[in-house]
Amino acid sequence: MVDILHRIGVTSSPEDVYATLSTIDGLAGWWTEDTKGDANADGVIRFRFEGAPDPGGFDMSVLETRPNELVLWEVVAGPQEWVGTNIRFELGEEDGYTIVLFSHLGWKEPGEFMHHCSTKWATFLMSLKRLVETGAGEPAPHDVRVSNWH
Amino acid sequence: MVDILHRIGVTSSPEDVYATLSTIDGLAGWWTEDTKGDANADGVIRFRFEGAPDPGGFDMSVLETRPNELVLWEVVAGPQEWVGTNIRFELGEEDGYTIVLFSHLGWKEPGEFMHHCSTKWATFLMSLKRLVETGAGEPAPHDVRVSNWH
Repeated sequence: MVDILHRIGVTSSPEDVYATLSTIDGLAGWWTEDTKGDANADGVIRFRFEGAPDPGGFDMSVLETRPNELVLWEVVAGPQEWVGTNIRFELGEEDGYTIVLFSHLGWKEPGEFMHHCSTKWATFLMSLKRLVETGAGEPAPHDVRVSNWH
Repeated sequence: MVDILHRIGVTSSPEDVYATLSTIDGLAGWWTEDTKGDANADGVIRFRFEGAPDPGGFDMSVLETRPNELVLWEVVAGPQEWVGTNIRFELGEEDGYTIVLFSHLGWKEPGEFMHHCSTKWATFLMSLKRLVETGAGEPAPHDVRVSNWH
């Protein structure tokens, strides 16, 4: 089992960062504009991306939320490499920054698609940082293109 | 042992991308302006960053170079978490893009510093892509800040 790991620091409060992870509007502001569902614990969130193969994105079951501290999802639909993996956002504070420790846990193999997803997660987390700090993120379909795989 | 993995695609030739990985000028254009040494096989490259703790950056021994295909380094000086790890750039072609499969291999533990380095590698690889595609990268000290750890 292999994991994707990232760390960003946002010059804002944990409350502001948590809102981007725990509300549909917040998630739509940095990951993909086409976000629907219920972002509360036990809810399911549907993230969709233009041109993505069936089902067109990812469905996440919200396993755990702790206000201003933690969000944990399980992927319940999407590319086979993603189904059953977990996505975790852990918040902390340091030097006036809200720190986000991100992990996408439980990949079966470190294949080329995982390399791609690691880079895309970094650019989306930078979009989250910009959303909170400037009011404007870069969610899909306006996301940063990293390669022929978008 | 855990690894950092990334994948980018550059709209240019493998020759152009390889030049950014196998020459001192190329490396200085996307990672850090303060790059010195010998980027050929069996050489040692010294990468330095303003404000970094002693020795102020990383020394890499060049283990292998295959023109337009592969660059492999071993970290011989730098933060203790980095010493002994390997950094690998594998080039390929797909859909008119030069694909870079990047890996930073052999971390002992998936600590917070590794999370940080994963995000920084993504932003530096995007700097490499910009350097080749536009002529201007964002090497340190002009690099994208991702957190309080820079």
